Amino acid sequence: MHSWNDIIKAIEQAQKILIFTHMNMDGDAAGSSCALCRSLRLLGKDCFILLEDVCPRYLQFLDEEGMFLREAPWMPELSIAVDCGNDSRIEKRKDVFHAAPVTACIDHHMKGGAFAQLEVIDPAAPAAGSLVFDLLQAMNAPIDTAAAEALYVAIATDTGSFKHGNTTAEAHMDAAKLYGYGIDAVKLNNFIYGNYPLPQLKLEAMAVERVQLFADGRAAISWCTQEDLKRFGALEEHTEMCIDRIRSIEGVEAAAFVKEKADGRLKVSLRSKSYADVNAVARKFDGGGHLRASGCTLYGSLEDALAALRPALEESVAR
Amino acid sequence: MHSWNDIIKAIEQAQKILIFTHMNMDGDAAGSSCALCRSLRLLGKDCFILLEDVCPRYLQFLDEEGMFLREAPWMPELSIAVDCGNDSRIEKRKDVFHAAPVTACIDHHMKGGAFAQLEVIDPAAPAAGSLVFDLLQAMNAPIDTAAAEALYVAIATDTGSFKHGNTTAEAHMDAAKLYGYGIDAVKLNNFIYGNYPLPQLKLEAMAVERVQLFADGRAAISWCTQEDLKRFGALEEHTEMCIDRIRSIEGVEAAAFVKEKADGRLKVSLRSKSYADVNAVARKFDGGGHLRASGCTLYGSLEDALAALRPALEESVAR
Repeated sequence: MHSWNDIIKAIEQAQKILIFTHMNMDGDAAGSSCALCRSLRLLGKDCFILLEDVCPRYLQFLDEEGMFLREAPWMPELSIAVDCGNDSRIEKRKDVFHAAPVTACIDHHMKGGAFAQLEVIDPAAPAAGSLVFDLLQAMNAPIDTAAAEALYVAIATDTGSFKHGNTTAEAHMDAAKLYGYGIDAVKLNNFIYGNYPLPQLKLEAMAVERVQLFADGRAAISWCTQEDLKRFGALEEHTEMCIDRIRSIEGVEAAAFVKEKADGRLKVSLRSKSYADVNAVARKFDGGGHLRASGCTLYGSLEDALAALRPALEESVAR
Repeated sequence: MHSWNDIIKAIEQAQKILIFTHMNMDGDAAGSSCALCRSLRLLGKDCFILLEDVCPRYLQFLDEEGMFLREAPWMPELSIAVDCGNDSRIEKRKDVFHAAPVTACIDHHMKGGAFAQLEVIDPAAPAAGSLVFDLLQAMNAPIDTAAAEALYVAIATDTGSFKHGNTTAEAHMDAAKLYGYGIDAVKLNNFIYGNYPLPQLKLEAMAVERVQLFADGRAAISWCTQEDLKRFGALEEHTEMCIDRIRSIEGVEAAAFVKEKADGRLKVSLRSKSYADVNAVARKFDGGGHLRASGCTLYGSLEDALAALRPALEESVAR
């Protein structure tokens, strides 16, 4: 379906291959890079994944074989970036990436500017893992259970377990095929969804507890201060799912979650369910994003921010 | 794949058809019965779904066409039970079911005793919706977008969004095919997962807040009293997901959630992640279930129950 010929030829001609993926690695980044690395090793290639930050704890099980390295072991003959739309996202590793005589990029983000010689970019693909699966099948590469499990993690996490808007028939077809490689999907889903840090769950509990509903329950707002983070021993990243929790309340159409940052700025996440234009809400405060998912930054006191957001949200759910 | 011939013949020969599904309707019951009813109507049949309780609010969108009835409009020429392993689960409607000259049962539960003349029972099927989809394809019945969306709801809910152990390659293949009928999966998932009653979310928040970890964080216990239900204006069914929330804490292998019932009994849900035998824990208190999901009932004070459960859980996570 994609024209993999050039990338397949480059893989055939190289022995030393380095794989790169974006900073702040997520399930698709880890899964697609581990699957590719594992398959290339099964083909007899010298292959590693070069990182500069750490792999999140819940994804570390993917690297049983020691594929992640923090320093390049040699200069690569071929560099392949996966799930990485722009070389600013490989940051300090950029020099090693471009030092290879041949560079390639396999990605599903909207094009951020060509940075590799050989590119397969498909924004319609549900995940980079789906593209890597397509490549491995196109080149008849060996796919063992561990590689298949890495591909499943990539696709399942990037589609929010087949619930998000990027889920396609192809995503489900890929999953169906991966079952044929003997994956243990229950185990994988336990790794992915069964390991939330307690401080994260406590922050989400707090966000629900203090939620304020208004506009006849169609709008909701909640928040988290630096003091709250300290109280639970939580990190800023632990607040990421609070907004989803607030939006999931029955009857709520538009939701806002306000996070106080260490420097006092107030970062606001905005989400809606089916008709409210939260992009318009964000734009009122010089922010932006999409119709159903936007954000903005406010300055000043938390009380003032909540007071400013309420009428804007209320307007967004009026009908 | 299944031998549908007899059921297809019975449908061809009947004009008035009633569909039955189990009490306390869930997504699979509602989705599989609505899809079947809708397709049979498109074939020109007089068809309704006979209920004796109400459809849960989050599933009511499936019945845009007025398919659910509380009284039989006529005596059926054919009765079809879907997602119903035993006729005790159609309770008071049993008489109408058996009054039809031909009765059929389409189900994926372990056999609970034959109760229909024509049966297709496949415990390996991920959902009753998957069997109904197979039937509709086998008989070349018209499947419109609404019927496809009902089938998607059936399969997605019964597999926990393709995460539970009953998820198969077939479940994903079905989902992939259903996309071909123009389903709006994002909308459906918003209906399914975006509408939690606030009292339910507040109970889950409370369960997380008061959770007690022990055995080096490998065991967790939490609880909910009648007083808590009152405080949040919650129903007993709103506690159902508390145990999953507790089990999802990082590092926790075995979890218990204790619910005080109106009559003072203490119902205990037990879950484990990967190695603890919570069936053995349940059996100590005359309960039972499965290795990773069990339950038991305790009597006496909450404090005594928690004190009795702790050492049993601790033993289950020892290694």
